[in-house]
Amino acid sequence: MWVKHADDVDKKAVTDYGSTKTDIQWLIDKKEGLHYAMRRFTMKPGGNIGLHHHPEEHEIYVLQGEAEVFSDKEKKIVKAGDVIFVPPNEPHGYKNIGAEDFVFLCIIPILEKLGS
Amino acid sequence: MWVKHADDVDKKAVTDYGSTKTDIQWLIDKKEGLHYAMRRFTMKPGGNIGLHHHPEEHEIYVLQGEAEVFSDKEKKIVKAGDVIFVPPNEPHGYKNIGAEDFVFLCIIPILEKLGS
Repeated sequence: MWVKHADDVDKKAVTDYGSTKTDIQWLIDKKEGLHYAMRRFTMKPGGNIGLHHHPEEHEIYVLQGEAEVFSDKEKKIVKAGDVIFVPPNEPHGYKNIGAEDFVFLCIIPILEKLGS
Repeated sequence: MWVKHADDVDKKAVTDYGSTKTDIQWLIDKKEGLHYAMRRFTMKPGGNIGLHHHPEEHEIYVLQGEAEVFSDKEKKIVKAGDVIFVPPNEPHGYKNIGAEDFVFLCIIPILEKLGS
């Protein structure tokens, strides 16, 4: 087994889809993971990830803060301890509507390794 | 997309492998997940999950507390924010050595759906 602390993993700014004030960390990246990868996002107050879609589903666990998660059809408020499932190809985006950082884990399949 | 709060998911005692004082919650179960499932474990102080192994790898994120994670060969101390990867078939177990609950997310592949 191996162990690392999430705070020691490099942060990279998310800039696609008009996203702002948001960093991504690949805690378990596509080389390390066998079937799926684990990422941690940190979004400052007022920050967002713009609406986008892709074939990978999301399994999300909210670690801290409060945000609006939206699709092209609906909008939900989420907070620490919430679990979110976003199906493949469903448009989705996020906006931090709270006063503290919105932090969440997001697990995605490594489709290249799954033969999909 | 759907959202649920982790606290609303049923808890079940973990009793295999001589495990004690530990509950599991299937936050995203094998029916809901497409490729992998998300579980949350809560282990009271002094609790443990005994040494065991299986074909599923683990991607783990520690939410709270402090524990010893051990294999048949080594032992590591982990705490909140640590990320742990346990390869397929590697023996592993956990013991809460702290004063508060040891809580962690553990993602496993749904091998039945992956054709493995």
